[in-house]
This record gives sequence, structure tokens and C-alpha cells, in this order.
Amino acid sequence: MAKYYSIKWVDNAVSMLDQRLLPHEEKYNTYTTFEEVAKAINVMVVRGAPAIGASAAYGLVLAVNAAETEDVGTGLEQLKKAGDVLKAARPTAVNLFWAVDRMVKKAVQANAQTMDELRAVVKAEADLIWEEDADMCFRMAENAMQVTPDQVVFVHHCNTGALATVDYGTALGVIRRAHEVGKDVFAYVDETRPRLQGARLTAWELQELGVPHAVIVDGASGYVMRNKGVNMVVFGCDRIAANGDLANKNVTYNLALAAKAHGIPAYSVRPTSTVDLNTASGDLIDIEERPSDEISHVFGKAHIIPEGVEVFNPAFDVTPNELITGIITEEGIAYPPFEKSLAEMVQKAEDRRKNRK
Amino acid sequence: MAKYYSIKWVDNAVSMLDQRLLPHEEKYNTYTTFEEVAKAINVMVVRGAPAIGASAAYGLVLAVNAAETEDVGTGLEQLKKAGDVLKAARPTAVNLFWAVDRMVKKAVQANAQTMDELRAVVKAEADLIWEEDADMCFRMAENAMQVTPDQVVFVHHCNTGALATVDYGTALGVIRRAHEVGKDVFAYVDETRPRLQGARLTAWELQELGVPHAVIVDGASGYVMRNKGVNMVVFGCDRIAANGDLANKNVTYNLALAAKAHGIPAYSVRPTSTVDLNTASGDLIDIEERPSDEISHVFGKAHIIPEGVEVFNPAFDVTPNELITGIITEEGIAYPPFEKSLAEMVQKAEDRRKNRK
Repeated sequence: MAKYYSIKWVDNAVSMLDQRLLPHEEKYNTYTTFEEVAKAINVMVVRGAPAIGASAAYGLVLAVNAAETEDVGTGLEQLKKAGDVLKAARPTAVNLFWAVDRMVKKAVQANAQTMDELRAVVKAEADLIWEEDADMCFRMAENAMQVTPDQVVFVHHCNTGALATVDYGTALGVIRRAHEVGKDVFAYVDETRPRLQGARLTAWELQELGVPHAVIVDGASGYVMRNKGVNMVVFGCDRIAANGDLANKNVTYNLALAAKAHGIPAYSVRPTSTVDLNTASGDLIDIEERPSDEISHVFGKAHIIPEGVEVFNPAFDVTPNELITGIITEEGIAYPPFEKSLAEMVQKAEDRRKNRK
Repeated sequence: MAKYYSIKWVDNAVSMLDQRLLPHEEKYNTYTTFEEVAKAINVMVVRGAPAIGASAAYGLVLAVNAAETEDVGTGLEQLKKAGDVLKAARPTAVNLFWAVDRMVKKAVQANAQTMDELRAVVKAEADLIWEEDADMCFRMAENAMQVTPDQVVFVHHCNTGALATVDYGTALGVIRRAHEVGKDVFAYVDETRPRLQGARLTAWELQELGVPHAVIVDGASGYVMRNKGVNMVVFGCDRIAANGDLANKNVTYNLALAAKAHGIPAYSVRPTSTVDLNTASGDLIDIEERPSDEISHVFGKAHIIPEGVEVFNPAFDVTPNELITGIITEEGIAYPPFEKSLAEMVQKAEDRRKNRK
């Protein structure tokens, strides 16, 4: 494990790296009540679906630990109320709802006889959510090693590291693992305009991990592919259609186009939970347009565009499957034709969950 | 002519738009001495090779006008000294040297008999330098109209407008001309990281000209090509090799790759003086690496990268000729094979200069 983390249970409290202060300050906040955790989620001390889910789960541990009752029914009521507060912290975060519902369901079904028993069940389930995500990320990184050259020069897009998950990360986990197993690694980190997740967060993580890297502007990806020996492109993604088309943070499409033109393999690294078999292709994915001030004001400080000028700021773009070499999941690497391989990966993940129960 | 300009002779003085204040303030400075003009060039009130050349030429007009002598020989000496001062203002600006040398040579060869005659010769030559550049830009824009659709959606890179020349501009002149002749025009302006010439200057010019446009991040060029009906891509360039490979402001290469992938024509718009027939191909062009703080600090205000992180900041990239549909010059449009067509364009320009003498 790296010396940093997004969210972790430490000394009977929730410890979170305050990501609002990155990259210039590394400060961990300690939260001892679920209300504080809800607030931290709300103001984005923590970000990234898995990290938010784990934060809410441990928030519920704080709630049930603080419950001043010996009656399990009352304790469960307080747990549910805390869950509602946590859910309201980021009302559009699907993973937050999923984590809270899973925790409450587990607590109810456990049929605990004492509050101590209930507390133990809740804590164990929060740990499991945390560990499952860490384990899933690690398996993706391990699976990626079979296609990662021993001398590897990456281009990496956005932030997909331990800061967005609970540990390891997705695409950034591949770079980290390659470094850990002794491969000769260099990573070009695109800055990821407009919100600069690459420049701010990915560069910070690689610095912490001791992985050699350099930040480039997004448009220089073709330049480094042509001149700097790049041989692997990795990124995450937000949603994968059944045919392998994928929606990811703007500007993945241009990066994938450049990789294709240079014959460099481009991999998306994401758990099977991102695959949406009900969406046939990328054309069916709606793209959110984001506020113009994300582009016109950098860090809220540098105002770079004339007043009144229109800005077009799609948050995501769709990369068609023909530009994707493979999709690296926790169950293995899906290759074209993706309709078949992705369905197989999803099935494998389902079987694994069934076997665990 | 637009209501704004980079540099112009107004009321017996040099008037310059202070580009350091753009896009938030439109302020014209008036300079009445050649020393002031040299200072303005030095601190980059004005930028762009043609605009710097014209500024120096009018600086020499100020010098000879201010000469307190009736002796033409003494006047010429003062002119030469002023020329040396102006040349020292930006020692690496080739066009600055060219303009000063041309002015001094003209003044000497004119064999003026009186200071009034000398002053008239010098003023006429400065006007000619200004007008030749404006005329050349206008002819490029006119030549471009034959390949510009009546309903046109552009992607434009960097700043190539009247702010970088004395009027009209190169690639931006094409957009302007299309709007003037009544075509239905929309332009996507890429912001041009790291120095943001697109967001700051091109957006400002198009706003002044009343051309509908929107700013995008550089990496969104593929997105708008795929989804927004883009049918023409235009950019300038800094140097064109004999085979049509061209070096231009980073990130032209990625833009040209995306255009090629979508089958959208991509044109470089530049005068024949940019063609270097002695450089066989783009591989022979050295690429300058620029300081890392151009990327790590936006406008010197927003510090976006962790301390100590490496930055790779090539100032230019080379776009190979197979990605270029045509090179629009003042003598016509050069098409592949560029070895032949570019040499013809250069010859035509030479013939035109000979005929003029």
C-alpha cells in the first residue's frame, strides 16, 4: 500500500485525505461522526465513486458506534436515518446509494441480538466494501501485466488512481503495478483540461509512488507517441456500452485516435460494474455539458477568455470500440468482438459473487 | 478593415494595441519616439513577426522625423542608429532585422537631397511594408474562398489573426473572409494550451469581428468533428519544409490526426516566405523546448502542478505532409505532391517581386 490513501478507517475514526488542497498540501482530516463524513462527501474532500461509497459505509459505522441504546431495533433505526443523511450528501452519486443500501440490508439481515453484535456486523461489512474495491483494483492491475511491456512508456489520461478509488486505482494502478514488479516505467501524464485532474492529482500520485513521469498538455499526446517511444495508452472510463464503445472524461477520443494512428495499444481499465449491457452502443449515451467557467477560469483564479465568449464544454466523449485494443477488468482482458467478451466478463464477475455467498 | 488593429500609423505617431492586457482590456498606446517603440516591442505590447516588422519600420519614421538636422547624411546616420536600437529590442526576431535593413537600404539608395525628401521616402517604405503584409494576408484569405464551403464549421488553432500580422491574419483571415462574403460561418476555437492564444486572442478577435464561435479545450477537436458538423480545419505554421511537412505551435499534429480520421480537409494558411525549400522534410526541423512554468502556472496565477514534478513542453510539433490537404499561400493553394507545388508557389512570389521592381 502506498503511504497515501483517499479514505481509511484509522483509530476508530474515518481518515480522509483532503483532495481539495492537492497538489500543494497533503492533509488528512479525521471524522468521528457520520454528520462530519456526510459534510466531507458533500464538499468533496473525497471524490470518485468507490471512495465515496466506502466513506459512506464507514460513516454508518460511526453512526452505529455512537448510538446510545442497548436496543438493536432502535440502533437499526438510527443506522437508517444516518444512511438517509449520507445519501443526501451527493444525491447523484449512484455508488453512494449502493453502499448505504448494502450496509443497511446487511445490518437488518444479520438479525443481531445485541448492539455489540450489530456494531461488529456493520464494521465488517464496511471493511468488506473497502477491501473488495481494493482487491478488484489490484486484480485489474495484475491482469494488465500480461500485456504491459517490460520497458514501457505510458500516456495516461485524467486521474484514475488511489485518490479516486480506495486503493491502487484503475488505469493508474496499471502504471503503479508495472513499477512495483520491476518494469522500466515512464509515464506521460496529460494535464486533462479543463479540470486538470492529470496535472493536479495523477502527477501528485506518481510523485508519491516514485514513478518517473512528466506532465504534458493534452494535445501533445501525438507528439510523445511519435517521438518518445510511447508503447501503451491507459485510461479509465465512466460507462462501457455492450459493444465496447465507451464514454470517458473528455478528451479520451482524441487520445485514442492518436494511439490508433501510431499503432499503439490503447486500454481502458475498469471493473465489470462499469459495463452496461443494456446500452447497445455509444451513440445511446447522453453526454453532459458542463459549466463554461470550468474552461474560462482556471482554478477560479486565472480568467483566460474574453467576457461574453461562448464556451462548449462537453464533460465526456464517446470513444468507438474500433479504437480500443482491450478493456482490462478484474476478471481478465476483454478483446474485440466486445459484445461477446464483455458479456463473458460480466458473467464471470456474477459467478464470483454467487460463489462468495 | 476591422475596428481593431495590432499596429498602425495614426496622427503622425505609432498606435499599438497593448496585447498584454487582452482579452480583458482593449487599450491603444501612442508612441511618438523610436525609443518608445523599441521598448514596446521589447515588452511585447506587440507580437507576431509581421506586426513587429511593421512596428520597427514606423519606429524609423519617428526617428527620421525627429532628426534635428537639415543634413541628409546626418539624418541617415541617426536613422541607422535608431535601427540598431530597434533591432536590439527582440534580438531573435528575424522579421525585425529584415524590416530595419530594408528600410535603411531604401533610405540610402533613394539618394534624397533634402531631409523632407528623406522623410517622405522612409514613410513611404514603412507604408509599403505595412500594406504588403495586409495585401498578402488578404490574398491568402481570398484564395481560400475557393475551397471554403458556403456553410462552414471551422476548427481553428492558436492565434493567427490581425493581432499577429498587421491586418486580416492568416488562418483566422480565412474565417473572417468567409464571414464577410456572406458564408454561414461557425468557428470552434481551441484554447491552445499552454499559452492560451486561442482562448485569449482568437476568441477576442472573433468577438470583435462578430463571427459566431465557441471556445473548446484542445482535446475536444475530435468531439466537435464527430458531432458538430465541422467541415474545415485551419491553422498557420512557423516553418514549411520542401515536402510540405510543417512545424507549427503544439498541438497541430493531434488536430491534423483527428481531421484525417474524420476525412475533414485540413489547411495550413501561410505566405510563401514561410516555405523553406532548403529543408527537405520535417524530421530536419529542430523543436524548441519551452520553460515548464508555461504549463505549471496558468497566467502566472494558477499553479496547477505539484512542486518538483517534471514537465515536457515542446513549443512546436511537426505535422507530416500526408495529414495536410493543402497549403494556402498568397499565390494560390499548394496541393500534394508538395515538393512540386510549393516550389511553384515560391517561384510565383519571386516573379511577382521582380515585376514590381
